[in-house]
Amino acid sequence: MSQLDLGITVVGLGLMGGSLAGALRGRCRWVAGVDREPDVVEHALDTGLVDRGTVDLAAGVSEAGLVVVATPVRAIMELVREVGRHLADGCLLMDLGSTKGEILRAMAELPSHAHPLGGHPMCGRETSGIREADPALYQDKVFLLCPLQRTPPEGLALGERLVRAVGARPVVLEAERHDKLVSLVSHLPYLLACALVGAADEEAAHEPLVWQAAATGFASTSRLAGSDVTMMVDILLTNREAILHTLSGWERHLSHLARLVKEADEEALRATLSLVCDRRRAMGPTGAERRS
Amino acid sequence: MSQLDLGITVVGLGLMGGSLAGALRGRCRWVAGVDREPDVVEHALDTGLVDRGTVDLAAGVSEAGLVVVATPVRAIMELVREVGRHLADGCLLMDLGSTKGEILRAMAELPSHAHPLGGHPMCGRETSGIREADPALYQDKVFLLCPLQRTPPEGLALGERLVRAVGARPVVLEAERHDKLVSLVSHLPYLLACALVGAADEEAAHEPLVWQAAATGFASTSRLAGSDVTMMVDILLTNREAILHTLSGWERHLSHLARLVKEADEEALRATLSLVCDRRRAMGPTGAERRS
Repeated sequence: MSQLDLGITVVGLGLMGGSLAGALRGRCRWVAGVDREPDVVEHALDTGLVDRGTVDLAAGVSEAGLVVVATPVRAIMELVREVGRHLADGCLLMDLGSTKGEILRAMAELPSHAHPLGGHPMCGRETSGIREADPALYQDKVFLLCPLQRTPPEGLALGERLVRAVGARPVVLEAERHDKLVSLVSHLPYLLACALVGAADEEAAHEPLVWQAAATGFASTSRLAGSDVTMMVDILLTNREAILHTLSGWERHLSHLARLVKEADEEALRATLSLVCDRRRAMGPTGAERRS
Repeated sequence: MSQLDLGITVVGLGLMGGSLAGALRGRCRWVAGVDREPDVVEHALDTGLVDRGTVDLAAGVSEAGLVVVATPVRAIMELVREVGRHLADGCLLMDLGSTKGEILRAMAELPSHAHPLGGHPMCGRETSGIREADPALYQDKVFLLCPLQRTPPEGLALGERLVRAVGARPVVLEAERHDKLVSLVSHLPYLLACALVGAADEEAAHEPLVWQAAATGFASTSRLAGSDVTMMVDILLTNREAILHTLSGWERHLSHLARLVKEADEEALRATLSLVCDRRRAMGPTGAERRS
């Protein structure tokens, strides 16, 4: 396991930040946690997720060699603007935000003594908050990294070492490619889940059996609809173009299926569903099994 | 636990039939299994899921007081037509099919000495086959029952006792209402999952990171796409009208969300997503927790 010879500050001690702090502790000089809620900082200290904790952003980041901002996307953008002048010389500033284009535009404005790097771990839960923190959250997960033009090679290398230190696997790509990719694998599934729950809720107004009949299949398909709303609103509003483009591509696939059902085209239906079934089964039950 | 004082034959020893047989064994006089594949019958005998087994449909059902047909929907319809004359006087013929309208129309033609009852347990897995059979599959699950006009009260009562004997909870409703209900909670989620995997597969042709970036959220939303294709083709083709109606209702919910994203209408987006989040969280992670 990588050992990082510097102090690391995590700003925002929710599920993602708290878990990252816990995974880093003991693998670097020290881990500090910053959160605006005093009881959250206290909880992180009490449960051993951090070595130090404070509600004072400036004090919390000023001695760190690496700062990770782990708040919802638009709070990241504000914090990036605010934190720059408090960072130590040569400090690497990373984030864990689920969209990258707008965050990297904010990061591009950082003072030149600090180095920015976009990050996005491909893990999470539909729960949130420090009480859900789990240092094993990042284990064996893909962790996307988006360097800026101004990110020095050693900054990217440090980011990759942080990713490996928490047990994840770094994959480097451009922000625009990132945002398109996650609109498909993450934001679209969320919207489908939300529309499904919305439709079920509407039907439940006059069909009392809806929630009783909704079994494991419905629960699985709709699971993401329980995601933290503040986090998701920020994501949707900072990746609108890619999401709408991906959605219209996806709708062609749904329309195709609906047409085959409508026309009772058994042969084409079987062919389409068989291909999709093979692809899905190749992923494994949780997606973790596939490494293609 | 209910004890049933009669012999029960399960026709079709796949995941659902094999699991039902295993759950019934020891809770009735005997359980017989019928399957057209000799090695499936042998496996059911070897693993103790059945007391008796045969590939001979007529011989397998003739002594039973209750016969459950547990094959894909269109095979159920064929078997219902074929099996009638082999049934003992007063035998109850049930099925486990996921759609009910067309099956009940076939059941209505049964000879008058036998009594039909439609059944649909709200459980399953995206795997199939006797090797996946699990007698605990029905435990605490909702089991929908659709009597026909000709079903005698004691036939329905026997069906309810069978449901309780395998640990499930009987809910009685009409076939048309059933088909509409499951088009929403089961068939629609399947189509959404299939279109999602189809879109991901298309994107993966030029974006090699798709399957790497597809994490637990994608896996959950798309899980049903790995369902048995033969089973799903039968379901889709025997519930077309309800599915297409439900789909168009659902599309209004998706369009609404897409419009809010497009217009960056933060307030309305937050309100819609918050409602949906509350509803989904009330279900619990697997849907099993909610009993409203």
